[in-house]
Amino acid sequence: SFDAAHTNTNASIDAFFLLYASTLIFFMQTGFAMVCAGCVRLKNVQNTLLKNVLDACAVSLGFYSLGYAFAFGTNNNNNNNSDKTTTFIGNGNYFLIGVEDDSFWLFQFVFCATSGTIVAGALAERCQMTAYLAYSLFLSSFVYPVVVHAIWSDYGFLSPRNSNPLWGSGMIDFAGSCVVHVTGGATALIASKVLGPRTGRFHDAHGNLLENPKEMPGHSLALQCLGTLILWFGWYGFNCGSIITLTIDDHYKVISHTAINLTLSGATGCIMTLIASTIAAERSTGETSYYLPYALNGCLSGLVAITAGCSIVEHWASIVIGLTSGALYLVFSKLLLKWKIDDAVDAIPVHLINGIWGTICVGLFAAPDLMSNVYNSSADHPGWFYSWGMGSADARLLACQLVGILFVIAWVLCTMFPFFWLLHYFGYLRADALEEYIGLDVAYRGGIFEAKDNEEDEETKK
Amino acid sequence: SFDAAHTNTNASIDAFFLLYASTLIFFMQTGFAMVCAGCVRLKNVQNTLLKNVLDACAVSLGFYSLGYAFAFGTNNNNNNNSDKTTTFIGNGNYFLIGVEDDSFWLFQFVFCATSGTIVAGALAERCQMTAYLAYSLFLSSFVYPVVVHAIWSDYGFLSPRNSNPLWGSGMIDFAGSCVVHVTGGATALIASKVLGPRTGRFHDAHGNLLENPKEMPGHSLALQCLGTLILWFGWYGFNCGSIITLTIDDHYKVISHTAINLTLSGATGCIMTLIASTIAAERSTGETSYYLPYALNGCLSGLVAITAGCSIVEHWASIVIGLTSGALYLVFSKLLLKWKIDDAVDAIPVHLINGIWGTICVGLFAAPDLMSNVYNSSADHPGWFYSWGMGSADARLLACQLVGILFVIAWVLCTMFPFFWLLHYFGYLRADALEEYIGLDVAYRGGIFEAKDNEEDEETKK
Amino acid sequence: SFDAAHTNTNASIDAFFLLYASTLIFFMQTGFAMVCAGCVRLKNVQNTLLKNVLDACAVSLGFYSLGYAFAFGTNNNNNNNSDKTTTFIGNGNYFLIGVEDDSFWLFQFVFCATSGTIVAGALAERCQMTAYLAYSLFLSSFVYPVVVHAIWSDYGFLSPRNSNPLWGSGMIDFAGSCVVHVTGGATALIASKVLGPRTGRFHDAHGNLLENPKEMPGHSLALQCLGTLILWFGWYGFNCGSIITLTIDDHYKVISHTAINLTLSGATGCIMTLIASTIAAERSTGETSYYLPYALNGCLSGLVAITAGCSIVEHWASIVIGLTSGALYLVFSKLLLKWKIDDAVDAIPVHLINGIWGTICVGLFAAPDLMSNVYNSSADHPGWFYSWGMGSADARLLACQLVGILFVIAWVLCTMFPFFWLLHYFGYLRADALEEYIGLDVAYRGGIFEAKDNEEDEETKK
Repeated sequence: SFDAAHTNTNASIDAFFLLYASTLIFFMQTGFAMVCAGCVRLKNVQNTLLKNVLDACAVSLGFYSLGYAFAFGTNNNNNNNSDKTTTFIGNGNYFLIGVEDDSFWLFQFVFCATSGTIVAGALAERCQMTAYLAYSLFLSSFVYPVVVHAIWSDYGFLSPRNSNPLWGSGMIDFAGSCVVHVTGGATALIASKVLGPRTGRFHDAHGNLLENPKEMPGHSLALQCLGTLILWFGWYGFNCGSIITLTIDDHYKVISHTAINLTLSGATGCIMTLIASTIAAERSTGETSYYLPYALNGCLSGLVAITAGCSIVEHWASIVIGLTSGALYLVFSKLLLKWKIDDAVDAIPVHLINGIWGTICVGLFAAPDLMSNVYNSSADHPGWFYSWGMGSADARLLACQLVGILFVIAWVLCTMFPFFWLLHYFGYLRADALEEYIGLDVAYRGGIFEAKDNEEDEETKK
Repeated sequence: SFDAAHTNTNASIDAFFLLYASTLIFFMQTGFAMVCAGCVRLKNVQNTLLKNVLDACAVSLGFYSLGYAFAFGTNNNNNNNSDKTTTFIGNGNYFLIGVEDDSFWLFQFVFCATSGTIVAGALAERCQMTAYLAYSLFLSSFVYPVVVHAIWSDYGFLSPRNSNPLWGSGMIDFAGSCVVHVTGGATALIASKVLGPRTGRFHDAHGNLLENPKEMPGHSLALQCLGTLILWFGWYGFNCGSIITLTIDDHYKVISHTAINLTLSGATGCIMTLIASTIAAERSTGETSYYLPYALNGCLSGLVAITAGCSIVEHWASIVIGLTSGALYLVFSKLLLKWKIDDAVDAIPVHLINGIWGTICVGLFAAPDLMSNVYNSSADHPGWFYSWGMGSADARLLACQLVGILFVIAWVLCTMFPFFWLLHYFGYLRADALEEYIGLDVAYRGGIFEAKDNEEDEETKK
Repeated sequence: SFDAAHTNTNASIDAFFLLYASTLIFFMQTGFAMVCAGCVRLKNVQNTLLKNVLDACAVSLGFYSLGYAFAFGTNNNNNNNSDKTTTFIGNGNYFLIGVEDDSFWLFQFVFCATSGTIVAGALAERCQMTAYLAYSLFLSSFVYPVVVHAIWSDYGFLSPRNSNPLWGSGMIDFAGSCVVHVTGGATALIASKVLGPRTGRFHDAHGNLLENPKEMPGHSLALQCLGTLILWFGWYGFNCGSIITLTIDDHYKVISHTAINLTLSGATGCIMTLIASTIAAERSTGETSYYLPYALNGCLSGLVAITAGCSIVEHWASIVIGLTSGALYLVFSKLLLKWKIDDAVDAIPVHLINGIWGTICVGLFAAPDLMSNVYNSSADHPGWFYSWGMGSADARLLACQLVGILFVIAWVLCTMFPFFWLLHYFGYLRADALEEYIGLDVAYRGGIFEAKDNEEDEETKK
């Protein structure tokens, strides 16, 4: 009776905790929507927002029907299979049938939605609505679940919980720097490459290369800032919630440790980017200027980079990760321009580059005693700096991390490149030139909605 | 000692859970405010926001003094009355005196505030401030509490927890499609009818009927989208929190089931509305156009409709409910225009129509095994489709649902129609014509606040 | 085994509860940012937002390195020191080393960040970025921690948990009216005094005193309203979370009591301010006008004032506190103008004045039975009105409150005045006159970012 009552109490706490985390993560959809809305020009606001909203909706259907089944699905007869043999893809639990733990499903769904929405910003202002809907369904029902299966499910070939993990260690990605952000970021890069830059960004009307890319600043810094701060808020659910079961072991200590790391990394990413960009601007123009969008994206970069290791690196390491991620963001943001890749919200340097960097950092900074709190089996193979300190220089974890990154990029490339290429080939991807010029909102809606009121007021004045 | 400690632990979880849910629901005030602000013209932003803020404030006083007492109040000597006899209205616990469970009070208050704020949008741009204050107090201290008493209190004639429930079943409205949304929505309809449409909406300056209603688009889609997403976020607290006591029975399973249903219904409502409106627009104009406000309101429609049955219908049913609610929204949004009822935020098709539809859906789709998790006593009378499947075609639950809807509409009509009519008769309801023309902000404040800065900048340029 | 399992369960709940509260409080950064963005003119939006973002970042570093150590730090050998002797400042646990309870650290950090960000608005539109960064670090690493140590740590000379509390009572500041808001508000006043008003606010271009101060209205009421509502939402975490350990005693009752008090006080503060300002305007101009910014700041005033006593005053008292705080806000908002102190967001009347008032109210309204739920030892010395009623007129608690207020103001004055004065003396504080005239965004960034899009659209039209 005591045991039953106690089990029920713990189950209540765990379900409540996952609900709390899931709602915070769901709120990140609002954050992404506001970032995107702020970063596009007024003439594309409606269109961009609609993509962000649809995203969440389409992903819920994709993940409900097939996605979860491919990621974690098991046939009933395998359900208690203690022999965790490797499979490439899950099979079972389609349409939520037979799923026993609804709270776990909910939590995985909001992760999938986050991964999907990363792409919206990168394609803003030039992508067709149908293409975007098709992409959301494809990502959530097939591409992302396979990645999840490989890294997070018990049966994945990269999972540290596999009965025979890769090189005795397996890959560690606590809250998804690689699973969520590299998947989303790599898709953004591929889509952006296939789609091409916004008209006028790198070339003038006659097709001549511009000396400097034309700046196309977003229409509202307030919205971008609002969105970024909402994302930061939601990130606490994203990273702390990834412990999944709160009541076992010392997991309650893990969540606060995680929250602090996340705070420090985001903060230092922001400060680093701001200082570096100010110094750079001062050197090139001689004037001091502070640029909010850099600071905001630097903050997001720190958050992305800490995500893989937030529960298993020390606080000082999270500061190191934050500082480096801010610098990496700046460098790659400039390089993308040089490479003529157009990304309205800098999703690629934020999510792809720092997703990769964060995943690598686990291989460098994962602390043995923290690992044993979270991943019992993997504590033998800590981050490289620690194993070096212990005289062994065991780089198995680092190697697993690199394999994981390569796998995710290769998988996304093999699936997403043909997908977008076909869409493009058949004319479903890119909005047509006139539509783009006058703005997708005008094209699809017959007028710039946001500005109408002012016009009316002007009429009133006459 | 074990029992005492365990009881205290469970009480902590329950209080924390209700606090979590209540704060999320309170945040819906922000959502409604942003939706309303986005949907009105620039000249009425301040006025509309002020109504939304005052709403929450006035409702807290109304519910504190009388509202809770009428809804759930009991005299102390009845407190342990196990014989739950029917009463029309509660009596006792005025001014929170003698209330033992503060967390339940808090939870009920935020529901009341939500019901009140639904009306703000429908009356936007033409209603006086004092009228609105009076309405908030009247709704929260009398009209809404009687509805709550009838359906949610143990002593209500419609309550399934009544010792002698209606037709042995009672009405089921888990999180308030009928209690909250029909009450708010019906009030919005009545108020909007009495108040009349905005000047120029259906008639030109000479009083001639316009061929097509003049569009009066809101000034910011970004704010409307922000508000809608905040509402969706808060809705998780609204629906999941309605289980009230988390730690008993298998309630922890109910919250995640609820959250998933809510997600699926909102998502399908959104997609359905978007697709249907796009097809309709394509047929009539020949051009593809996507219209964000429809998608947002379709999403809200799905959320409203699932609210009554979120914990007791299967996931597939929540998709059916979402799809139908999106379609219903579109149809009634057009019909309202035809009927010359002006509703700046489409609160009537969203909250009234889909509140009704959601309540009916419980009578159709309530699944017996899920019902027994939540309502022990009512599992004998499941949704009609299930009882049909079991060969009995027991429609008692469905009948109770219909009675409940009729009761709420009749009650709101009997109380709110005279109330608004009297306000109107004595000239306290409608802003005067000139004020409305130049905008309530100008009238009350002496200038369009939001635009001042630009003017100043223009001066700077000279 | 039962004990161990039960302890672990309770530890999970407590850590989760603090995480929940901390994330809500962290979200208040978003609220402050939006309030500030809404209250400044368009030309200073970027600059103001950047300060708000940097704030959170810099404070995390300041509090990580030194702040927590000065506030709560103990050397390991003192850790189990049951003899709580008074110290002026903490010593130990620098850089989070040796901190056992990460969730407590996180919770204290978000409080520190809140205190820091109060100042941002008061200095808006004329303060240099470097000065603001320096201030953030100084406040979070030294000034604020000393206040926390004195009032909240077990070793503070004002703490009721000190083994030998002041006058046998000690000062009570449950969630920080004094610790957080007076510290932040007093800093805002000092900084604003040293910095001087915005150019043109009180004098014309020739230095002649204006008859009436020039109004410099913010550019967006919608953002200000959004920010205020987000703050209200976060305040539930701020006040309810201050119980720290949820699972002991009857603490679960305290959190809902606190939440209700907070709601009532915020609501009545808002209504009071709105009604009073409307009546005042009617008397002076003869016209009815409603002014949203007053209502919003009145609401915040009520929230600030209830913060010290939210858990230990009765519900009726919270209404009294709300009403008075709204009136105080209005009076001091006008007085500040008379005194030529320029405060773009009215942070001084909201946070300083009502922080003081709220702290005093504890000395008047603290109810004995509620105090014993929260502060076991202090129930002997309740609020003055209660001890009066009991015939003793014991004013020890009230006296302690006054001492506390004086201490905080004196401490902030002694540290912050020289700090800002030196910054000013060496020319690091105030933006130069031209920069201020054309707007800090233009000066630092080379253009009004927010408006660019419209210009571009105009080009498109040509």
